[in-house]
Amino acid sequence: MEQKTGKQSIQFAQAPYIISAASVAGKKEGEGPLGKLFDLVCNDDRFGEDNWEKAESTMQNEALSAAIAKAKIQKSNVRYLFGGDLLGQLIATSFGLENFDIPLFGLYGACSTCGESLSLAAMTVSAGYADYAAAVTSSHFGSAEKQFRFPLAYGNQKPLSATWTVTGSGAFIVSNKRGNARITGITTGKVVDFGVKDSMNMGACMAPAACDTIYQNLMDFCRSPEDYDQIITGDLGYVGQEILIELMKDRGFDISKQHMDCGIEIFDRDVQDTHSGGSGCGCSAVTLAAKILPNIEKGAWKRILFVPTGALLSTVSFNEGQSVPGIAHGVVIEHC
Amino acid sequence: MEQKTGKQSIQFAQAPYIISAASVAGKKEGEGPLGKLFDLVCNDDRFGEDNWEKAESTMQNEALSAAIAKAKIQKSNVRYLFGGDLLGQLIATSFGLENFDIPLFGLYGACSTCGESLSLAAMTVSAGYADYAAAVTSSHFGSAEKQFRFPLAYGNQKPLSATWTVTGSGAFIVSNKRGNARITGITTGKVVDFGVKDSMNMGACMAPAACDTIYQNLMDFCRSPEDYDQIITGDLGYVGQEILIELMKDRGFDISKQHMDCGIEIFDRDVQDTHSGGSGCGCSAVTLAAKILPNIEKGAWKRILFVPTGALLSTVSFNEGQSVPGIAHGVVIEHC
Repeated sequence: MEQKTGKQSIQFAQAPYIISAASVAGKKEGEGPLGKLFDLVCNDDRFGEDNWEKAESTMQNEALSAAIAKAKIQKSNVRYLFGGDLLGQLIATSFGLENFDIPLFGLYGACSTCGESLSLAAMTVSAGYADYAAAVTSSHFGSAEKQFRFPLAYGNQKPLSATWTVTGSGAFIVSNKRGNARITGITTGKVVDFGVKDSMNMGACMAPAACDTIYQNLMDFCRSPEDYDQIITGDLGYVGQEILIELMKDRGFDISKQHMDCGIEIFDRDVQDTHSGGSGCGCSAVTLAAKILPNIEKGAWKRILFVPTGALLSTVSFNEGQSVPGIAHGVVIEHC
Repeated sequence: MEQKTGKQSIQFAQAPYIISAASVAGKKEGEGPLGKLFDLVCNDDRFGEDNWEKAESTMQNEALSAAIAKAKIQKSNVRYLFGGDLLGQLIATSFGLENFDIPLFGLYGACSTCGESLSLAAMTVSAGYADYAAAVTSSHFGSAEKQFRFPLAYGNQKPLSATWTVTGSGAFIVSNKRGNARITGITTGKVVDFGVKDSMNMGACMAPAACDTIYQNLMDFCRSPEDYDQIITGDLGYVGQEILIELMKDRGFDISKQHMDCGIEIFDRDVQDTHSGGSGCGCSAVTLAAKILPNIEKGAWKRILFVPTGALLSTVSFNEGQSVPGIAHGVVIEHC
């Protein structure tokens, strides 16, 4: 059976299952609307470690351990890890996952990495290369601010278009063993560069990429927005959501009824002072694990399009005057 | 047919072909022993751009364009790009490949990324997800020194154990269409951490990972070193080569006759003052494209094990007192 669909998509002949998911989050995320849904909330933003980077490694470690336990398998059953984070050289991932002793494919797609890792894990399992593969991603407010923006102690003010990097990690076990949620297809994103240069407005950088991937998904699978119960982006926030809905309208589709954004879901803007919303590759990962998958598993949502969005921001390219291109990877998840 | 082999390997039921390869290199590399074998050597280390990072993007762009032309296909035939580099947030890759308008999986495995990208491209093509997939990696001496060590203008001295980051990019088209070299199997590496903390001795950081992957490849495929014409690591250099051969002896295998290292091949140590040898994810990529594949295609080598090696070094984790773990991804390439 031909699995390649349209220009950028795969419709799996043997659709793999997400058999377990786990979420680990920080204190602020624990105080937000999804707080009670996370598997683990740690009130210490260093997770018992002496710096934020090690804290992020600990989150990945805890998330993957929990996902493996929930799947009722041993870590030796997991044949491949697909992991990534926002930090240079993926240090949260390499140090966080090294003691699992499992072959690792390190990935970087900025905040879209949760979609990239699930896509590759699904491709791997569906092809028969593994019975179990894990997808793990994380972000941490402290380590991300330090790397991409200003030292926290500097106390800079942020414009209202800025997002708040989520401290969290999500892990997923993808398998050919039966579960209640299934990855039936993927639409892999291209780098989309509208020339936006504002590092304090990631939503505007990513919205064109999200639009490109969602539009292509609808084309490749011959679907309309109504074929999805939800179309869920990663971390566009309020600013990016508005742009995405406008861009999709320009392409002939109204997704305002279906659209949901993990960055909007995870914080209470009015109470938590998080401006445009949450962001980071932990944002979409913990929201998928804690809120989206449970809704799919119980059948409240029959089919969703999950589109983690990434802004390919680097301080080096930014300081050299380059734009901030975006990328977004779509994953179709269905109840079964 | 069962494709999973042993603990960490895949033996492809439908082994994909590497139908074309292209290499782009800098001036110093052009003056080395492989100089005449590269497709393009640029005497300007900025490749006509105004900084090293853009130069690295240009190299990736040139390498992929050349590989697509050599394969006699159009860029629209390439369904997926698997790409990466050493820079934070993969800026060489995202800016270098964005105008191809092809779905991109961004990868980070430090200098092992060439092996990681070929592995995933082979898995993708063999499973029928694509007829053509491209694997592209690069490194640049200037951008790497600036990011990982000292400003070039500082003129620091290096110990003899240090390697010289290769300025170069290699691109490969992997396809189910027939060629003269075939990826018959892969062995995906784990993060291996011997606790080495010397950022000026990458060979020592990576040798344990290379040993782990090579040993596991021999176990998983029930082979001995003699079953390979060459066992080729990425960038261990002279220091790392010695350690690898000793470590393999401890595990019961003498690979001294088969072992070759791209970092040793690419420079003339005596004339070019490159200390332990070349390194970077461009090093193994251009050596594969310019020297290794031609030998396989003409049948001089029937079967080789190609093992790009990566040191998961980051200035942040290094300054926080962490070690430099290694990872190595094995790719079995055969003449056909």
